[in-house]
Amino acid sequence: MPGTPPARFGYLGPAGTFTEAALRTLRAADRADLLPYATVAAALEGVRQGEVDAALVPLENSIEGSVATTLDELATGDPLMLRREVLLRVQFSLLARPGTSLDDVRTVATHPHAEAQCRRSLAALVPDATVVLTSSTAEAARAVAAGQYDAAVSAPVAAQHYGLTELVGGVADNVGAVTRFVLVGTPGPPPSPTGADRTTLVAHLTDDGPGALLALLTEFAVRGVNLTRIESRPSGGVLGRYSFSLDAEGHVAEARVGEALSALKRVCADVRFLGSYPRADEVPARVVAGTSDGDFRAAAAWLAGLRAP
Amino acid sequence: MPGTPPARFGYLGPAGTFTEAALRTLRAADRADLLPYATVAAALEGVRQGEVDAALVPLENSIEGSVATTLDELATGDPLMLRREVLLRVQFSLLARPGTSLDDVRTVATHPHAEAQCRRSLAALVPDATVVLTSSTAEAARAVAAGQYDAAVSAPVAAQHYGLTELVGGVADNVGAVTRFVLVGTPGPPPSPTGADRTTLVAHLTDDGPGALLALLTEFAVRGVNLTRIESRPSGGVLGRYSFSLDAEGHVAEARVGEALSALKRVCADVRFLGSYPRADEVPARVVAGTSDGDFRAAAAWLAGLRAP
Amino acid sequence: MPGTPPARFGYLGPAGTFTEAALRTLRAADRADLLPYATVAAALEGVRQGEVDAALVPLENSIEGSVATTLDELATGDPLMLRREVLLRVQFSLLARPGTSLDDVRTVATHPHAEAQCRRSLAALVPDATVVLTSSTAEAARAVAAGQYDAAVSAPVAAQHYGLTELVGGVADNVGAVTRFVLVGTPGPPPSPTGADRTTLVAHLTDDGPGALLALLTEFAVRGVNLTRIESRPSGGVLGRYSFSLDAEGHVAEARVGEALSALKRVCADVRFLGSYPRADEVPARVVAGTSDGDFRAAAAWLAGLRAP
Amino acid sequence: MPGTPPARFGYLGPAGTFTEAALRTLRAADRADLLPYATVAAALEGVRQGEVDAALVPLENSIEGSVATTLDELATGDPLMLRREVLLRVQFSLLARPGTSLDDVRTVATHPHAEAQCRRSLAALVPDATVVLTSSTAEAARAVAAGQYDAAVSAPVAAQHYGLTELVGGVADNVGAVTRFVLVGTPGPPPSPTGADRTTLVAHLTDDGPGALLALLTEFAVRGVNLTRIESRPSGGVLGRYSFSLDAEGHVAEARVGEALSALKRVCADVRFLGSYPRADEVPARVVAGTSDGDFRAAAAWLAGLRAP
Repeated sequence: MPGTPPARFGYLGPAGTFTEAALRTLRAADRADLLPYATVAAALEGVRQGEVDAALVPLENSIEGSVATTLDELATGDPLMLRREVLLRVQFSLLARPGTSLDDVRTVATHPHAEAQCRRSLAALVPDATVVLTSSTAEAARAVAAGQYDAAVSAPVAAQHYGLTELVGGVADNVGAVTRFVLVGTPGPPPSPTGADRTTLVAHLTDDGPGALLALLTEFAVRGVNLTRIESRPSGGVLGRYSFSLDAEGHVAEARVGEALSALKRVCADVRFLGSYPRADEVPARVVAGTSDGDFRAAAAWLAGLRAP
Repeated sequence: MPGTPPARFGYLGPAGTFTEAALRTLRAADRADLLPYATVAAALEGVRQGEVDAALVPLENSIEGSVATTLDELATGDPLMLRREVLLRVQFSLLARPGTSLDDVRTVATHPHAEAQCRRSLAALVPDATVVLTSSTAEAARAVAAGQYDAAVSAPVAAQHYGLTELVGGVADNVGAVTRFVLVGTPGPPPSPTGADRTTLVAHLTDDGPGALLALLTEFAVRGVNLTRIESRPSGGVLGRYSFSLDAEGHVAEARVGEALSALKRVCADVRFLGSYPRADEVPARVVAGTSDGDFRAAAAWLAGLRAP
Repeated sequence: MPGTPPARFGYLGPAGTFTEAALRTLRAADRADLLPYATVAAALEGVRQGEVDAALVPLENSIEGSVATTLDELATGDPLMLRREVLLRVQFSLLARPGTSLDDVRTVATHPHAEAQCRRSLAALVPDATVVLTSSTAEAARAVAAGQYDAAVSAPVAAQHYGLTELVGGVADNVGAVTRFVLVGTPGPPPSPTGADRTTLVAHLTDDGPGALLALLTEFAVRGVNLTRIESRPSGGVLGRYSFSLDAEGHVAEARVGEALSALKRVCADVRFLGSYPRADEVPARVVAGTSDGDFRAAAAWLAGLRAP
Repeated sequence: MPGTPPARFGYLGPAGTFTEAALRTLRAADRADLLPYATVAAALEGVRQGEVDAALVPLENSIEGSVATTLDELATGDPLMLRREVLLRVQFSLLARPGTSLDDVRTVATHPHAEAQCRRSLAALVPDATVVLTSSTAEAARAVAAGQYDAAVSAPVAAQHYGLTELVGGVADNVGAVTRFVLVGTPGPPPSPTGADRTTLVAHLTDDGPGALLALLTEFAVRGVNLTRIESRPSGGVLGRYSFSLDAEGHVAEARVGEALSALKRVCADVRFLGSYPRADEVPARVVAGTSDGDFRAAAAWLAGLRAP
């Protein structure tokens, strides 16, 4: 998002979800139009079609949707590129219509993932209430506003969207859960390296034998590139054949990352580069001995001297 | 499932989902009580609490729920063990109340994952219909039966459950999608090896540096054990620290698998064995040279001779 | 050589070489008959034929003979086993007949390896002398005693053997060179582990492709076994096909070493175990996390519990 | 050696050894002065001092001298570079003064390595003869010519040098032994790649822990570079600390070899490149999928496109 910020951002809706809250943490979103999409696929298609300049979708530990969906949508179709990431501490609130007290709550609506994360708290707070599952936490809030249920477990931001009040805040069983969102745009030059960057890619292996994945990971390890996420994804709808979605520390402009990517390009059936962008947690990449850009430059100069003294 | 089959099976409900269809492919289910649970977590908790003898839940490419949820629920809490797996070809039907024709369809309800898999077909069949998302495909069918929407994209089995008829069958964009379900019970001796088995486990690394995952995979590779699935899962709610959920070819009773598991036990912070069980696709494990049980026995005898000639 | 010491030790002769000096550092040699052999091959054959109970021969950085010969003789023929090792600081003296002064020295005899190690010293001490090469440093001393040459560069021990006096001591260019000798006997139970042991073996690969040696080394590395020496040796007289002579830290009785040896036995064309014995330098083996005997025992117990709860 | 051939070649003498025979197989030697040196060290020093343009010395399976010496002399001192290699089938003859018959032979002189390779043949041919060891096979022939011994086991070429006749040819126990010699010159541009080249280098590790050598070999393996020889050499006169002498398939001008060398330069304490030159056996390098120069070029172009689309 360098230079002039996009005028329009899509996000995984509906309004009032955690994704909207995450999007609003971006300064660029202050003056932008924010468009909710019903699904991750729709939001990314909106980027491809030029309806929005970029879209924010959850990538890990999502509450409102599936990480798998995001990974799969990024791995196929017209290429897209990750431009930024946003980390959001997930906080659930028990919301109700004004005037409702905790004792009045007989039914609680929420998304299945939120239910899983708040089960023990709900059992303590409203032990006799029936839990009803909805397609999103925002949909739960909407249904409560419509009078269908007594309370919703939702993002705090949903209260203002649907005219609800917070009966109890912080109802997650585990305090501190964080969701990672990515801002997805069309392909282009990556933002400049900051020293604390992440690179995301998808690699398809040519072989499923023992050691095929090992070989792939070795390409990173020998160059001192740390992986911070790896997931196998069924490839082409066939269980047992996989592609791998990977996050690596560092930036494609750095020598060790670039050489590792080139190596994957040579030995994999296919590699899709999904971007290098600043880490939201600003943790600098660990650069092990012998893998700095200076080390690569010195070795390249030495090699040139061997080839043509 | 040796000997007398369980009298009661849980499954990820509601009734009429693909999970129920998968469960009904098991002969042991013929005479058993089948209990739907609202969530994977609830189904597995039912096993832990002894409400059911085992529960069938989706593990990969699930339509009705999240794989991630299954992985996370298996990885924590009281230990459970996978006893069998079931592969089910996913087929979607467009269901409606009797008397509804395709031209009458203005609203279509379905689960977000099903929507993603049928988007192009729906655009062709009912281009002007509005798609409404529900918490499961069975819930969509129920809502259609209740008159809330005109049609549902659901498992074919939902038609009989909710008194609907099939307007169109096979509406998935990609024919041939398969979901893998696992039958989860309490810990016990694994079923005997068949030569075509799978072993599932969760490993927590002690270190996040470059090469930590590589080291883990090397333990399998040096012993010729092929991995058929690997996924990193955020560990303890912290992004950037991961455990790994793994499927390996072979059975814990086989020497190469046993030695690899022992090695993981030694070098990982924690290993949770989730079972060895027959593969549903009956593909025999590849046994590379030097890694058969006979090879291990011969080497052990040789070593014993060195130590005490 | 615990318990009753052998009555007869062979060694690489002739008398007055560094090997004899190394042999005399062993207490067991005090009461034993010491038999010089003309070659390493002859000394080892003497062990095989029962002429001596064991023989001391140089393995590394030998002055009196070739390491390669020792490696090759151990790798083929009837099996032998290393029982001990001896490290000897190599010290060269310039020896002459009594009455000879440094100014009288016109010819200096020595073995080619000794010449290489003392070249600069000789150029300074006797710049005008001609250097004559002999088949051993002891042979040089013998020839000086016989009046053939004026001086010999030999082991100090040669002076008394041949009735010579030391003109100059410590004539090596590099102070501190050490030769490693091994005491070779017939196969039998290895001496008990001391915590500072070494294991020697020869492995023949089945394949010469990239990664074949890597695979072999990985078997050690995954089990935390450090290698202290590795040499490729032409196999069967064919350049380009190799066996590998290896020294590993640790003792065959230790779990990590035993499992690594078993793995080699499974994946190599052939493995010849040449013994586990105390290190002369008494440096304890580094035991990395997860590879102690206790770690192996705990993992084996865990595995047994998985297989038959 | 492209262009004008050197006028003067040194070699490991004395005249009449296998090294001279190997040198004479080079066409460039036809018109050149051939200078014998007493030791490998002296021959290489002759190159460094400009006394000769290049020197031929044995590298592997040497009969006349020690491979270890060659490796060590190349690894230290002013840099040298291997320009060519020569393979010579080793053939031993039993030589005597004219008029001597096999029955007259009471003493046989030879070098210890030759003795080891001909022991069984000699035991059959001259069972009662005493074997005397000399510092080279040529020295043995010289001593026979001088009347000191009855016969010599030497290279056939020694007969003409010393006026001897061949009593028996082909007396090696194993037919087919081959020695590899290298022609060593001063540093300069390597000869052009032929597709069947070899690259020789010395690498010093920074660390002796388990996996240090493994890491080094992995740099070659990930780039599909096959190693054809590896030897650990005591480093700096200290047993237990090693440098590694390596032969790799391929040429420094090739991308996979160049990148591997650069990687070593980055991660090793020191790397000494000793040359890329045509293999004498003309065996083309195996190029595994993804490691051809074309693959590297395509990957580099792809990477450039990612960095600056």
